[in-house]
Amino acid sequence: MNSFGSLLRLHIFGESHGHGVGVTLDGVPCGIALTEADFQEDLSRRQGGNQPGTTPRREADLPQFYSGLFNGMTTGAPLTIFFQNDNVRSDTYEAQRAIPRPGHADFVAHHKFGGYEDYRGGGHFSGRLTVGIVAAGVVAKKILPGISIRATLIELGGQATIDAGLAFAKAQGDSVGGIVECRVGGLPIGLGEPFWDSLESLLAHAAFSIPAVKGIEFGAGFAAARMLGSEHNDALESASGHTATNHAGGIVGGLSNGNELVFRIAVKPTSSTPKQQNSLNIQSGEIESFAVKGRHDLAIALRVPPVLEAMTALVLADVHLLNRAR
Amino acid sequence: MNSFGSLLRLHIFGESHGHGVGVTLDGVPCGIALTEADFQEDLSRRQGGNQPGTTPRREADLPQFYSGLFNGMTTGAPLTIFFQNDNVRSDTYEAQRAIPRPGHADFVAHHKFGGYEDYRGGGHFSGRLTVGIVAAGVVAKKILPGISIRATLIELGGQATIDAGLAFAKAQGDSVGGIVECRVGGLPIGLGEPFWDSLESLLAHAAFSIPAVKGIEFGAGFAAARMLGSEHNDALESASGHTATNHAGGIVGGLSNGNELVFRIAVKPTSSTPKQQNSLNIQSGEIESFAVKGRHDLAIALRVPPVLEAMTALVLADVHLLNRAR
Amino acid sequence: MNSFGSLLRLHIFGESHGHGVGVTLDGVPCGIALTEADFQEDLSRRQGGNQPGTTPRREADLPQFYSGLFNGMTTGAPLTIFFQNDNVRSDTYEAQRAIPRPGHADFVAHHKFGGYEDYRGGGHFSGRLTVGIVAAGVVAKKILPGISIRATLIELGGQATIDAGLAFAKAQGDSVGGIVECRVGGLPIGLGEPFWDSLESLLAHAAFSIPAVKGIEFGAGFAAARMLGSEHNDALESASGHTATNHAGGIVGGLSNGNELVFRIAVKPTSSTPKQQNSLNIQSGEIESFAVKGRHDLAIALRVPPVLEAMTALVLADVHLLNRAR
Amino acid sequence: MNSFGSLLRLHIFGESHGHGVGVTLDGVPCGIALTEADFQEDLSRRQGGNQPGTTPRREADLPQFYSGLFNGMTTGAPLTIFFQNDNVRSDTYEAQRAIPRPGHADFVAHHKFGGYEDYRGGGHFSGRLTVGIVAAGVVAKKILPGISIRATLIELGGQATIDAGLAFAKAQGDSVGGIVECRVGGLPIGLGEPFWDSLESLLAHAAFSIPAVKGIEFGAGFAAARMLGSEHNDALESASGHTATNHAGGIVGGLSNGNELVFRIAVKPTSSTPKQQNSLNIQSGEIESFAVKGRHDLAIALRVPPVLEAMTALVLADVHLLNRAR
Repeated sequence: MNSFGSLLRLHIFGESHGHGVGVTLDGVPCGIALTEADFQEDLSRRQGGNQPGTTPRREADLPQFYSGLFNGMTTGAPLTIFFQNDNVRSDTYEAQRAIPRPGHADFVAHHKFGGYEDYRGGGHFSGRLTVGIVAAGVVAKKILPGISIRATLIELGGQATIDAGLAFAKAQGDSVGGIVECRVGGLPIGLGEPFWDSLESLLAHAAFSIPAVKGIEFGAGFAAARMLGSEHNDALESASGHTATNHAGGIVGGLSNGNELVFRIAVKPTSSTPKQQNSLNIQSGEIESFAVKGRHDLAIALRVPPVLEAMTALVLADVHLLNRAR
Repeated sequence: MNSFGSLLRLHIFGESHGHGVGVTLDGVPCGIALTEADFQEDLSRRQGGNQPGTTPRREADLPQFYSGLFNGMTTGAPLTIFFQNDNVRSDTYEAQRAIPRPGHADFVAHHKFGGYEDYRGGGHFSGRLTVGIVAAGVVAKKILPGISIRATLIELGGQATIDAGLAFAKAQGDSVGGIVECRVGGLPIGLGEPFWDSLESLLAHAAFSIPAVKGIEFGAGFAAARMLGSEHNDALESASGHTATNHAGGIVGGLSNGNELVFRIAVKPTSSTPKQQNSLNIQSGEIESFAVKGRHDLAIALRVPPVLEAMTALVLADVHLLNRAR
Repeated sequence: MNSFGSLLRLHIFGESHGHGVGVTLDGVPCGIALTEADFQEDLSRRQGGNQPGTTPRREADLPQFYSGLFNGMTTGAPLTIFFQNDNVRSDTYEAQRAIPRPGHADFVAHHKFGGYEDYRGGGHFSGRLTVGIVAAGVVAKKILPGISIRATLIELGGQATIDAGLAFAKAQGDSVGGIVECRVGGLPIGLGEPFWDSLESLLAHAAFSIPAVKGIEFGAGFAAARMLGSEHNDALESASGHTATNHAGGIVGGLSNGNELVFRIAVKPTSSTPKQQNSLNIQSGEIESFAVKGRHDLAIALRVPPVLEAMTALVLADVHLLNRAR
Repeated sequence: MNSFGSLLRLHIFGESHGHGVGVTLDGVPCGIALTEADFQEDLSRRQGGNQPGTTPRREADLPQFYSGLFNGMTTGAPLTIFFQNDNVRSDTYEAQRAIPRPGHADFVAHHKFGGYEDYRGGGHFSGRLTVGIVAAGVVAKKILPGISIRATLIELGGQATIDAGLAFAKAQGDSVGGIVECRVGGLPIGLGEPFWDSLESLLAHAAFSIPAVKGIEFGAGFAAARMLGSEHNDALESASGHTATNHAGGIVGGLSNGNELVFRIAVKPTSSTPKQQNSLNIQSGEIESFAVKGRHDLAIALRVPPVLEAMTALVLADVHLLNRAR
């Protein structure tokens, strides 16, 4: 289903090339001031066309508030934010439909929805829906006073800097992936639950809802599997929970432990590479060579940081509200 | 909260050193034959004391069926399975309580539950609760005919074989971590949903509910972030979904794509290392050096494979039932 | 929260005098044909201004499909339907704000949302939101082939006919209530669950979500409390579940039993009566006499039948999908 | 499914003639003192055999705490309470199986669970499961300081007193039904939500989960449908929400309004009447006349009040915790 969260609950809807995409955020506390300007920075960071390596498709990405806002303040009722699709070119998709694009959801969506899926630009599977998620994240951040959330692209195309990664992609004439790290400061001790609603479970659940994410690790992560126990354990140094090291990434027993929350996600290379590729023509049954047309990102990873921040903010605001209930 | 799943829903309860641990599995289809013997293999794989490197604490781990089973068949009513705790030594925990054990939930649990938590052996945070999860997994596997689920420890203490990993741990006099890989064959196309209920989201959510897991990756995973798009894309070769490569690990757009499902998790070294460690004495406010007492695993990773299989089976059985509803 | 349902899940949003009201219906099977015309009958039955005794406020009530529909067919993605508010007069509400209208949510909403609530015309508490619910019900009915759902106003202002009830209301110069009965034919045996998800629980939950409903009874209902067991029991007559009588209203043990589903709801008189009333001026602290202004229904019960049908269809479509999963 | 509640979540399991029945209550705040004695009064009120007109089946009904309690205090972990079935006679049920008892779930359960259901004494559909619900209610009441909840049987067999109702039943040689009223004092303003999670919706959902309940009404209830608007409206008299009358039963717009919460439920006569009845023998296809054997209540309504209190407490504790989160 298309909902996430418990006390702060996000519903998403829309398609890449339909009327638009939107979100309804339920459980927003009343009395939060919201203006269009509050959304600009994060929406702009997410947007294609603003930086080298991203798609030239430019949407205005103006949030339209359909409910839940009155006199510039949240009312406590569901907050619906809609983004119209202005800049839609659908013609290429119909032509291309017989040949499912490798790495995309075309083939599985066709199977699951029996051909009724809106196949234009990925339809409901499109990364376009993350615009609404970013908007919801802006609201979620406002529910978390004193907590800073920052996601950064720390590796692109295997290179340590964005410039190097883009240069590499262009030299290869191919798309590339990257690694995004998220750091959260100011968290209190005790957010999250043991087992199912561990912070790692909730954050991973949300992070893998971002298209193209294929891995996540907290603190030392995969490297922890090669450490010794005495080396990995973070020694408690103060009653505020501060530890000498932070191999746990700020989470122990599924709960925030008072240290910085640190995790990283792996973003696969954009599926729509400029290179020629093979795929099956499901009408003819023949393997065909083709190149994906349309306007695409050379590295979708460039646009992921604000989406990951939004996902993180949604999870943290939710567990923050839950903690208040106890 | 202590529940997971949608149509097949697992509730867990119990403590490490209390009366016992148990599960209630709701939504089990009626008419599934279940005997104690069905549980033996997976429970035994999970159990300490059966293999080198695991705790000498031995529980009988006899599943007691409290509800939902009649004449040896599931009835469709909630299935409750309880495991008594027989082999409980609690005295050391009281003494040790002032000094939260590094890597354990002691400190955060104390904060969250104000000192009311059952602190003996980790209480409700203990890996002991995974015995019930494994039992639930045995039932879930029976809901998935024709689907094979197999998790294997593919790396221990940075070594490629278990023997080498244990030898390394013993030589170091320390605990070690490991990497567990899970492979699932026979999945149909189209399980999972776009975004929130992507197979990756659900599996990651479940996997991070296993204590000590700090990372997960699907298919090429973190390595995908360093691949080129043309290299990472799996070319479709047949109408059954078979692809030439499987860098996606069997999931595209959040949905199973007809190939083998492949993912790996990183397990941190057992927090209870034999080595001396420092921690804060929260009563005296002094840093103290101490060694964790009690019976512990040198490598908890050794016991994780059947737990990961259970988690995987629970997720897959749930989405399988969901798909049947559509 | 503003969501209802399990496999077919409805989210509602919007305000009486804001931009509009809408619904997102998640879990709609793909391949259902939908045109604007499909919605006309039920929307028109719900609408004010079409029948004597209802508000002269006339909205066009044109459903706008924002997502989930492609080439006139449902895609399986969330279906969002929006209704713009055209005919909004808000000025009276600001003036009246100091004096909470008796029977309305004004006072409690003000308390709960600290004055941030959209108070115009009841805001998010308004019956206006039922337009979206009726639209969702149209879709739900299409998921229930062979099942007929019909709600009828069987009593108005204590009179057996609508004409008599309206005549009575006009003679009194006051608003009146009524009783709506819903009958469902064609249900299979076994929908619903014991205890929490009994059909009565689910239908009552949904029915009380309709503003102004204050009672519900199934089959013989309150009269059953005065019957003898031998009199109330419905004797089974055929293997298809047919019973000689239907005092149970088609539900036994929480499950549909193969007979007609019959239940009734009590609708209170419209709170906005033309009569002078007293209320507290919460600014001055004085009791004041006043008359509610604005355009209102003499009997909101007149507009309830299509809403109750929609609620019933939503519940039944949900349990129908659940049954398919088993 | 067998769960109810959002932040305070109750799971039930067990069968009438199996090992026992139990509950897991999740979300219980830590630090609540609980002893066996706390449960005695409500369990005893629910129990058969303590009053004229109830079944002579006597269970010890001793709550066994399986998890979530440590040193006599709740820990914040799931609280599991189990009640063993001691006093089980199953032989009659096997013999009677071919003839579904009128008014019971036998026939529908058989259909839904394909013959795998535990049919002894109603199995999982049995009122026996309410013992666990009453126990959970005892805990829920402790989460609601300053709030009094009292349910009373106000009508039995159509008579105003219990004695008269029992005398009537005995004179008729038949079972009877009754009406139970619940009154709650001390509620703050603003519990509940508009629409789906209205207090009426939640309370009705819970009340209809009690076996044998066929109607519910709040405040004036069905009588409201025959009142005039000016008569039904409760005029606000003070800033604390106090109204001159309480026809709304303490709920307006789905929210508590600061007045006493008042509602009534209709309980049908016990299905197992001493009278001869007809039913279909589903093996022979013949209509047969028979009398229900076993030990049964002449008026199940006698035992309902503590169950209704428990249900009410569970709902109110849940919305109380939700309100704290906002």
